Amino acid sequence: MALCRVCKDKGIKKEADVFLKEDKLYLCEQHFNERFEKNVLSTIKKYRMAKKDDKILVALSGGKDSMALWYVLNKLGYNAKGFHIDLGIGEYSKKSKEVVLTLANILKQEVIIIDIKKELGATIPKIANKITRKTCAICGTIKRYYFNYVAHKNRFNIIATGHNFDDEVSTLFGNILQWNFKYLSKKYPVLWEDEFFPRKIKPFALTTEEEIINYVKFNKIPYITCRCPMSENTPTNYIYKEILLELSGKFRGLRKKFYKTYLKDVFPLFNQQKEKYLNKKLTHCKICGEPSLHEICSVCQIKQKLKEN
Amino acid sequence: MALCRVCKDKGIKKEADVFLKEDKLYLCEQHFNERFEKNVLSTIKKYRMAKKDDKILVALSGGKDSMALWYVLNKLGYNAKGFHIDLGIGEYSKKSKEVVLTLANILKQEVIIIDIKKELGATIPKIANKITRKTCAICGTIKRYYFNYVAHKNRFNIIATGHNFDDEVSTLFGNILQWNFKYLSKKYPVLWEDEFFPRKIKPFALTTEEEIINYVKFNKIPYITCRCPMSENTPTNYIYKEILLELSGKFRGLRKKFYKTYLKDVFPLFNQQKEKYLNKKLTHCKICGEPSLHEICSVCQIKQKLKEN
Repeated sequence: MALCRVCKDKGIKKEADVFLKEDKLYLCEQHFNERFEKNVLSTIKKYRMAKKDDKILVALSGGKDSMALWYVLNKLGYNAKGFHIDLGIGEYSKKSKEVVLTLANILKQEVIIIDIKKELGATIPKIANKITRKTCAICGTIKRYYFNYVAHKNRFNIIATGHNFDDEVSTLFGNILQWNFKYLSKKYPVLWEDEFFPRKIKPFALTTEEEIINYVKFNKIPYITCRCPMSENTPTNYIYKEILLELSGKFRGLRKKFYKTYLKDVFPLFNQQKEKYLNKKLTHCKICGEPSLHEICSVCQIKQKLKEN
Repeated sequence: MALCRVCKDKGIKKEADVFLKEDKLYLCEQHFNERFEKNVLSTIKKYRMAKKDDKILVALSGGKDSMALWYVLNKLGYNAKGFHIDLGIGEYSKKSKEVVLTLANILKQEVIIIDIKKELGATIPKIANKITRKTCAICGTIKRYYFNYVAHKNRFNIIATGHNFDDEVSTLFGNILQWNFKYLSKKYPVLWEDEFFPRKIKPFALTTEEEIINYVKFNKIPYITCRCPMSENTPTNYIYKEILLELSGKFRGLRKKFYKTYLKDVFPLFNQQKEKYLNKKLTHCKICGEPSLHEICSVCQIKQKLKEN
């Protein structure tokens, strides 16, 4: 491999440990890590995501993104507590919980774990089986419920998720192709808190998948590599990801420019009109008090249905 | 081939002559032609492009799009005169002029022909050779100049070009990927006349290339198939065209929905801000009186440079 660019600029000849395709940059491990952490800090500050005294809840699936996020937020000195939901999806969930506990141990931190079977009386596969809705949709609803629930109960004012740049740019691309105004008028690296929800932040919004893969490798961050066995076979987003990578190969820097210019100059135009695309008015669930579109929220409705069965 | 859908709906069994991929539609020649003409009329009316008493100048390159446009505008009863520029690019220009004259003969119409060698004293290849600018750029400048010049001189209030749906949607796609606000804030199927320019219209903005190919075939409209020998090898737009066709194969109707929703709901947002992206103030060329960014317009400057050489 070629020489580390940063070392070279300092007059030192040191072989690079990584080549970053997106930026055409050779770096040694030390300078890669420094750059990675500096960039995440800069994203957090640019979008005013969090201050050092905020209480951040990090949603941990066990995958590389969320695990790297918990690790780096700690390294950067943020008050970031891990939170994991045991979905009860066989080996996948067992392994996910294991890596989360391993990282908790490395970071010498506690982690909040919610066990869906204990909470709702059944695992995700059983719930999906009993209630005729798509598994991924029902699982998403339940996970979002517990993010908010745990944050409210434990007075966290921010929820951080590991969505990386590749996820964000391809989702944006898909929503632009469909002109999905409901998405376009709201989604942003930070979604501000309101009467119903804590703040939601995506500190990896400008960090590529490639960078995260190298960061977990260099820092020996444990994570699971397998995808959830219940997820759809070929997610649409994958097609968009591939197209954008192909275009970025042809037109250098296209993905980053597309995303950053959108956030700066286009998002505000759609966001102005967000009232048009609002959900029905939210209220508080009569049973649990969490945000809901109906008198009784989706998760309390699921609980009721499971009892009836 | 399957049966014509329209005939079938009338209880007649007639074999289809064409299958339109974009709309998954089988039609016989007669019903294809009727649908084609009805759709073009509907585009013209939808965007208030022209009325029957407007004087329309049709820019004819000799390719299928502009030739089909001249033909159909006549068929629909518009006052549409053909206009061709002889660029002096060897065989390509000779053949272009030939097909234009052939169609003029079929339509029993005169056609205005501007000969660049007579006007400027040199053909496009010679001009590009003498003046150090990219051929396509200089040729584009000269063509646009004569569109406006001929329209002004002959009191046409509208210039019509043959840009088809495939061109428009892929150009839009590329300009969205680059967030080219100057383009996005102005380009629309109709560009209204102002102090400097006549109205510009694209009556084929919603007509696919596939439809035009069949229309010229069924109506025996002459056209040249070869591309200009001086044009770039692989235009960027071609890459975007291919990607959109691929996506439309996967998500039915994606291209049409992307373009139509853009025109209806997104263009107005960018257009509101067009003042930000305006060119420097236009003026009238001191020599010829045509619109110009400088005291002397580009074409008069070219004339001067050619004299100096």
